[in-house]
Amino acid sequence: MTVSDELCSLRWDAHRASVEVIDQTRLPHSLQWRHLDSLHAFCHAISAMQVRGAPLIGITAAFGLAHALTEDPSDTALGQARDALLATRPTAVNLRWALQQVSELVQALPPRERAAAAWDKAQRLRLDDIANCERIGENGLRILRSLGKERLNIMTHCNAGWLATVKWGTALAPIYKAQASGIDVHVWVSETRPRNQGSGLTAWELQQAGVPCTIVTDNSCGQLMRQGRVDCVIVGSDRTAANGDVCNKVGTYLKALAARANDVPFYTALPESTIDWSCVEGGQIPIEERDESEVLRVAGLDSDGDLCDVGLAASGSQALNQAFDVTPADLVDTLITEYGCFAASEKGLRKLRKIISGQ
Amino acid sequence: MTVSDELCSLRWDAHRASVEVIDQTRLPHSLQWRHLDSLHAFCHAISAMQVRGAPLIGITAAFGLAHALTEDPSDTALGQARDALLATRPTAVNLRWALQQVSELVQALPPRERAAAAWDKAQRLRLDDIANCERIGENGLRILRSLGKERLNIMTHCNAGWLATVKWGTALAPIYKAQASGIDVHVWVSETRPRNQGSGLTAWELQQAGVPCTIVTDNSCGQLMRQGRVDCVIVGSDRTAANGDVCNKVGTYLKALAARANDVPFYTALPESTIDWSCVEGGQIPIEERDESEVLRVAGLDSDGDLCDVGLAASGSQALNQAFDVTPADLVDTLITEYGCFAASEKGLRKLRKIISGQ
Repeated sequence: MTVSDELCSLRWDAHRASVEVIDQTRLPHSLQWRHLDSLHAFCHAISAMQVRGAPLIGITAAFGLAHALTEDPSDTALGQARDALLATRPTAVNLRWALQQVSELVQALPPRERAAAAWDKAQRLRLDDIANCERIGENGLRILRSLGKERLNIMTHCNAGWLATVKWGTALAPIYKAQASGIDVHVWVSETRPRNQGSGLTAWELQQAGVPCTIVTDNSCGQLMRQGRVDCVIVGSDRTAANGDVCNKVGTYLKALAARANDVPFYTALPESTIDWSCVEGGQIPIEERDESEVLRVAGLDSDGDLCDVGLAASGSQALNQAFDVTPADLVDTLITEYGCFAASEKGLRKLRKIISGQ
Repeated sequence: MTVSDELCSLRWDAHRASVEVIDQTRLPHSLQWRHLDSLHAFCHAISAMQVRGAPLIGITAAFGLAHALTEDPSDTALGQARDALLATRPTAVNLRWALQQVSELVQALPPRERAAAAWDKAQRLRLDDIANCERIGENGLRILRSLGKERLNIMTHCNAGWLATVKWGTALAPIYKAQASGIDVHVWVSETRPRNQGSGLTAWELQQAGVPCTIVTDNSCGQLMRQGRVDCVIVGSDRTAANGDVCNKVGTYLKALAARANDVPFYTALPESTIDWSCVEGGQIPIEERDESEVLRVAGLDSDGDLCDVGLAASGSQALNQAFDVTPADLVDTLITEYGCFAASEKGLRKLRKIISGQ
């Protein structure tokens, strides 16, 4: 089984050197593809979260750099484009990783060869992402099978599905594989305030694939675990430190605490590219603070079917909007990667690194 | 210092036997008082959450019973009115408690004397609530002082302020007392999805009293504690079991877990009337499930300043909406009551009961 070819977040037409992405700020209310045709459009797509999710941010940035090199392949333009793309989001490490992959390759080439090589590299990163996510799905499926249940209630947070990658997803890949293998899967989708990636993106994505799911408030996730209604939690990661600390969408830490308190296994699914080997522990990861309006206002469909932005708090209210939190490694049972499953610890990650360097 | 007389959620005019409440579904966008002039209006005010908060629900129901007895003081009418009011909300125990207080009194009286006695009793419960909440504030202030800080960052959840009682509040009473005593207080207000009582009611209420506060998503409360930015958590309680388990607005349990993991004191402030002595442990408390539309839709002010209801999820999405959760007693450091502060345990509550019965 493969996730349908329709279920893909970024399209690349090699013939026309053209990149299109789903504008995720419009989901779940309408499915709109955006043609990215300038460096500004690529940067805006990332910073305004038309594309989001650590892997997809990285791939989009790689294509953005290729686009910029098509317009101007000079060292100066390369540096400027890389800096502009790097500045769009601070927390996910894939952005830096993907830009580095493309930059290092093209810096060694004469300017006239750079654009073609960059497009080619971006496309290879895109295909690698698809293959890696499918392997994460297979490795995760083995863990889900080991729980020994015919019906699985899996909780997830934010969106770490194919909308956060190119295809398959990270946290959702094992769920798609489990469904295909005949396990009766049901997903608890936490809405993920303030941007509602759970209710807006994950629930929509699971519905496209026919996976039964129920939206719950972030607040109710502890209660559901206490009631024994959750068999495991699977989330993604925006950046993983070398000691196994996981930086992911804010609210992940609370779910990990509740999972531990209620003996519910807590898994993080991530491609190796989200590991920051230079980061000793999670406290070193910069936590993005986004605009307070994301907390004080919310967008949705009004009764006429128009997208409408409404204010929730009294005028003059102030909010703090930290987009991520850090879950300490000791609350994470297993890291599910494309290379297999590893303990969330310095030792576990050393083992992973050894496997990678041995290849 | 007293909280200003303006800051009161329920007005009672003895001369006209008239009850008015703030319609809290309109806050923070507009302050509208509703005249409750029929049993149906009292029931609707509670079930539609125009009034909410365990203590205020109880007082409103007591006035509702008095109103019903004015129209018909017979035993049949008394039973019907009591049943109708009791059915409005299942979790808060004050509703049952307040109805019992009035019923037991009037049952012993001939029908012609019942209405006047019921109005009088409801008004006494109202005044007792104000006095009890002020004592909770004073007892809580002693605990806050014992933290030995000049500046206190206090986290709260939902609304347990004067909007949830008649005046002062439970969880917010110690905060008002702390501010008045010169402590530099700042409150982290968690927005409290799905109904946003934090961003909509608590932030508004604190602003009315000039207490600095910052709204945060429910998701970010763990992170703030990990960052050392929270000195203590104070919440209210809708029902407290005889072993000290606390049933409160859903999301309370996650905060209690995070507080314990980060050595942040976690307090529950409650009048004795919210203790269900017949309830051995929290698992026996019925958890209200409200309509899924509260999770799938949200109301706010649109750009024209009109109240507008918007959909957050794809059509066809399903949600589960549990309104409360249970925090096990061992995660609660102290119960702050009008009788003093007690350990959240069977032993602590036995001590409280002894004090009450000795009076």
